Amino acid sequence: MIFASDNWSGAHPAVNAAIAAESGGMAAAYGASTLDRAVEQRFNEIFEREVAVFFVGTGTAANSLAFAAVNRPGGVVLCHREAHVIEDECGAPEFFTHGARMAPIDGDGGRIDPVNLQRELSRFKPDFVHAGQPMAVSISQPGEAGTLYSAEEIQVIAGIAHGRDLALHMDGARFANGLIASGLSPAEMTWKRGVDILSFGATKNGCWCAEAVVFFEPERARQFPYIRKRGAQLFSKTRFVAAQFMAYFGDGLWLEMATHANAMADRLRAGIDASPHARQAWETHTNESFAILEKPTAERLRAEGAVFYDWNPPHALHTLIGENETLVRLVTSWSTEEAEVDRFSQLLA
Amino acid sequence: MIFASDNWSGAHPAVNAAIAAESGGMAAAYGASTLDRAVEQRFNEIFEREVAVFFVGTGTAANSLAFAAVNRPGGVVLCHREAHVIEDECGAPEFFTHGARMAPIDGDGGRIDPVNLQRELSRFKPDFVHAGQPMAVSISQPGEAGTLYSAEEIQVIAGIAHGRDLALHMDGARFANGLIASGLSPAEMTWKRGVDILSFGATKNGCWCAEAVVFFEPERARQFPYIRKRGAQLFSKTRFVAAQFMAYFGDGLWLEMATHANAMADRLRAGIDASPHARQAWETHTNESFAILEKPTAERLRAEGAVFYDWNPPHALHTLIGENETLVRLVTSWSTEEAEVDRFSQLLA
Amino acid sequence: MIFASDNWSGAHPAVNAAIAAESGGMAAAYGASTLDRAVEQRFNEIFEREVAVFFVGTGTAANSLAFAAVNRPGGVVLCHREAHVIEDECGAPEFFTHGARMAPIDGDGGRIDPVNLQRELSRFKPDFVHAGQPMAVSISQPGEAGTLYSAEEIQVIAGIAHGRDLALHMDGARFANGLIASGLSPAEMTWKRGVDILSFGATKNGCWCAEAVVFFEPERARQFPYIRKRGAQLFSKTRFVAAQFMAYFGDGLWLEMATHANAMADRLRAGIDASPHARQAWETHTNESFAILEKPTAERLRAEGAVFYDWNPPHALHTLIGENETLVRLVTSWSTEEAEVDRFSQLLA
Amino acid sequence: MIFASDNWSGAHPAVNAAIAAESGGMAAAYGASTLDRAVEQRFNEIFEREVAVFFVGTGTAANSLAFAAVNRPGGVVLCHREAHVIEDECGAPEFFTHGARMAPIDGDGGRIDPVNLQRELSRFKPDFVHAGQPMAVSISQPGEAGTLYSAEEIQVIAGIAHGRDLALHMDGARFANGLIASGLSPAEMTWKRGVDILSFGATKNGCWCAEAVVFFEPERARQFPYIRKRGAQLFSKTRFVAAQFMAYFGDGLWLEMATHANAMADRLRAGIDASPHARQAWETHTNESFAILEKPTAERLRAEGAVFYDWNPPHALHTLIGENETLVRLVTSWSTEEAEVDRFSQLLA
Repeated sequence: MIFASDNWSGAHPAVNAAIAAESGGMAAAYGASTLDRAVEQRFNEIFEREVAVFFVGTGTAANSLAFAAVNRPGGVVLCHREAHVIEDECGAPEFFTHGARMAPIDGDGGRIDPVNLQRELSRFKPDFVHAGQPMAVSISQPGEAGTLYSAEEIQVIAGIAHGRDLALHMDGARFANGLIASGLSPAEMTWKRGVDILSFGATKNGCWCAEAVVFFEPERARQFPYIRKRGAQLFSKTRFVAAQFMAYFGDGLWLEMATHANAMADRLRAGIDASPHARQAWETHTNESFAILEKPTAERLRAEGAVFYDWNPPHALHTLIGENETLVRLVTSWSTEEAEVDRFSQLLA
Repeated sequence: MIFASDNWSGAHPAVNAAIAAESGGMAAAYGASTLDRAVEQRFNEIFEREVAVFFVGTGTAANSLAFAAVNRPGGVVLCHREAHVIEDECGAPEFFTHGARMAPIDGDGGRIDPVNLQRELSRFKPDFVHAGQPMAVSISQPGEAGTLYSAEEIQVIAGIAHGRDLALHMDGARFANGLIASGLSPAEMTWKRGVDILSFGATKNGCWCAEAVVFFEPERARQFPYIRKRGAQLFSKTRFVAAQFMAYFGDGLWLEMATHANAMADRLRAGIDASPHARQAWETHTNESFAILEKPTAERLRAEGAVFYDWNPPHALHTLIGENETLVRLVTSWSTEEAEVDRFSQLLA
Repeated sequence: MIFASDNWSGAHPAVNAAIAAESGGMAAAYGASTLDRAVEQRFNEIFEREVAVFFVGTGTAANSLAFAAVNRPGGVVLCHREAHVIEDECGAPEFFTHGARMAPIDGDGGRIDPVNLQRELSRFKPDFVHAGQPMAVSISQPGEAGTLYSAEEIQVIAGIAHGRDLALHMDGARFANGLIASGLSPAEMTWKRGVDILSFGATKNGCWCAEAVVFFEPERARQFPYIRKRGAQLFSKTRFVAAQFMAYFGDGLWLEMATHANAMADRLRAGIDASPHARQAWETHTNESFAILEKPTAERLRAEGAVFYDWNPPHALHTLIGENETLVRLVTSWSTEEAEVDRFSQLLA
Repeated sequence: MIFASDNWSGAHPAVNAAIAAESGGMAAAYGASTLDRAVEQRFNEIFEREVAVFFVGTGTAANSLAFAAVNRPGGVVLCHREAHVIEDECGAPEFFTHGARMAPIDGDGGRIDPVNLQRELSRFKPDFVHAGQPMAVSISQPGEAGTLYSAEEIQVIAGIAHGRDLALHMDGARFANGLIASGLSPAEMTWKRGVDILSFGATKNGCWCAEAVVFFEPERARQFPYIRKRGAQLFSKTRFVAAQFMAYFGDGLWLEMATHANAMADRLRAGIDASPHARQAWETHTNESFAILEKPTAERLRAEGAVFYDWNPPHALHTLIGENETLVRLVTSWSTEEAEVDRFSQLLA
């Protein structure tokens, strides 16, 4: 009953097989091997256009270096108040951008409210150096709260961003889970709706180290090779990241794994809804669920071996949780088993 | 009728005289002259204890380098949501700290609400690297909104900060105006109530370039000489900053100038209160006033030669201003004349 | 005949087996798994003392974050003029330290000459802020030129460094090759001779992504978890790095692989020495060799399928290479085959 | 007998008078006043073309922000091995550029040798990310060693820089002294020979705080207002810097002061040449002289009240100084008096 995080899961056997297959012989380092090239081509196919793709080691690196690529002096990234880039990356986005600010925007369910976004942008007057200058809007799909933007919502935010000449970045650490839950295609969830740069994560969903920054306009990436190397994110044996991606995309494995993870979360949410000691904190459709548990229930579950984290409530919802309650996050993954979920649900009942 | 900012004012004749007096001959550069030493001694007297004082060129430098002095990797400064360090320094605090985050705390009148401060701090669990680590709390006295903390309020915030091993920084860009309006002594407004580091500004109040960082525990400043030089803030001919400070403190000139500026603001506020076309946005007692004007009134005043800035409303108060109104800031200074204020008030009536 | 770099090699089957074995089930992320703990214990055994060890993604990250851990404002690292941290990391050491300078020291064979080190240090007077302040000495073992420091030479440099209160860092990207070539034990090659921090590389020698920063005084590492996370180098699924290290150290595999790589280099050097068209640029005993080839010879070898890089000559030796010659680097690895070497030698003859 | 530095001198009475004249009334802050505009126009006249000029607080700021304006990720500045930006700015250039490297080039008399410059550049292959990418060449006129480039030499270096698409920066901390000594016009010493950006210093030569960054192609400066503000170098009361520049340029005062300083240095050099206990370390023609003194002579001079600094010998010349000798720097200024020089020379005799 491990619902701590999808990064507690291992790697899919097909991913390992690909690593093993790649282990012999010699191949060009630093992204220049045949396999590296093949994966780049695979990304083009998946996104139905030519993209520039760069492997990096962590999701934090993907987000931070993406911002560095479009930064301006005194730069400001507008993102949700509880975005991962604010709450969970130890200041890496600020660090890699030489001090860009992550300006927090409020909105329900971890999603930027376009009205708030417009209002915040209106605080920045042209050529008023004191305030700094916005340089990007960043959304997460799915977001930290496990929720989704619709294609239309993405398009609205993109319109606002582009109206101010700002790049739109998407943190897709759980991109596949978002795809499945939204029913959108990769292209439709991104550049067709105005996303300029994507942090594409595969680690949580069955790889062990496979993250990438995807530029939908390759021209924007001109300086990125230097940005990545200076940021210590250029692996020498990149072919092993490439191998993971090849297996990940092969035969739709990535979608299969995400479908499973989301289905396990649906099953878990049903268990929460059925319990008199728990309720969903808000509605989610991806592999992350958020529940408010009575404290004795949480303790009992943990005593029985369940693993899950207490979660900081959204700033706007700190009154949501009662005195004797606790907010927890429950994450399922490609390797979560039905039996675990069912046992958890029984204990909840 | 210039109420744009106190930094539109010039320099007091006594300050100029001191500069001129210092202009002949030779003296040690980089802070090592006799006059530099004398000013340091003067700071000790004013604050009733031994302090470490460092001249810098701008208030932005003072704040940013102060944070750099107490920074930690992944560091977070907790400050008011509309603090100068967030809204008006083009990201310099983040830049000089290699990416520390300015975490915005809400509170009325530009003052941190201790309950909100506690709640924000509770989001940072010990040794949870993902969130980063708080390193300082920063308050402004007076604040961007022209308001003041009482000595007791400072002490409460200091208690919270020190309870988490955080430095308490005070942005005192208008320190003298705050002193006069609060009736506190320099010591009482700072270290006696728990302030650890002070950005001490004299530029707005009758000097032309005289800012300093004051450490109440000199030991904390051990690396500061390097931090300042690396930050390009070590003037060579520091004796000319020293000369300004000497004149500033001499015969209580600084308090006299601040008293005048505050009195002019009181007079201005009386004019606003008396007008049917204007109202104070919130109560202030320093040399900054904030008024909500009917738009035609604002236009008329400007047509008559009045100069003042439109002001971004506090995030929590964006509904404060009506469709046909505008929020403006009105600042008086040591050189504001009664006649200007009276003419403005008449035009308002 | 691939002698381009040891990072063109793959991963040892035992390493892959370990990755595969770790792939099922769930385990704590971010370095908290049982396997992570076990590897830390393994490092203690190998170095015969308690160390603090942190996995990172690249050798560049290891070096850069090590410097960040001991940095001072205006910090200066003294290293060889052709050190990897100067020539091959795209400014990452400067980037991660917020601008520390890499001060180049000359010396034969890529090794810091202690006399030059002393002379450079004498340029920094205590409390003279303008020059900045030294914070570390960094040596590479083996160095970029494929050469080695003896234990005594390390000790001499350590004495100089410690005499100025500077940390001694060792870049051990090819640590195992250095161990074998020098005949020293891990402890003897490091902390017993005064090394404080080690960048420990296993990637080039049979892993695919296994690098670590090792602190011989764990206390120095207190802030390192934040430094690493802020630097985007904290993998989520660290157990897969741990698995690589476990296989690497198991049954002395690491030493076996390094022994093979070094032996292949010896064989190659014999071939160079025997050739009338080539000569060794300088003497080496590790898995890197440097040869001066007649240009037509180099072309012929490449035409036959040999892969190797032209190399920038050391600054002091730019007259070493004749008009019709070229300096090349030849690197062998754990997977280099005797037949490749022999064919290369034949072509050279 | 103060020859410590020209920054030990004070401010010319005309400069003070200008400050005093500007002290009354109100004027737009942050560079927007009428006087600010007038000074910008004055710079256009002096350089015989439209330039973009930005005031900053220190020479270190001018250099560092200039580099930041043309920086690239992994950027490298090529400058003389003993350049001020390497030896005397506590790492500020690296700090403000997020870690650009200052690559040291050797050359006689503190001047970059074009052959060495070419050779260093040849080490950077296009698109080879590991080495980083050159972004500027920086020369000092006059240099740290008190020497000058001829117009032709500047042009040669500019040709090399531009051939690699690098900006050519000139550190003109003592620009006026260089003008007088070289007999060149401001335009001829800069953009007409290929200089792109100039750090223009007036502080050492009779102002007390007047430094500027001058872009000869204003388009390059597009982001500079943000770079300066983020760097905490935007003074609020800029009109007081403007006032200093107006007085400085008025009636050729700046050239007059530099002529005096240089003449005093000539007189001093004659004294050194005449002494049996001293010799010039190398030939200089500006207001800086470098002498090798017998140690007892240096002690005697200091005992008599002379103030001057020991100087680190150029790296290539550390054998220049005998066991019983010391290298010292002697600087004259606009306020140095003939009598001081003559007394010094007598004591030397």
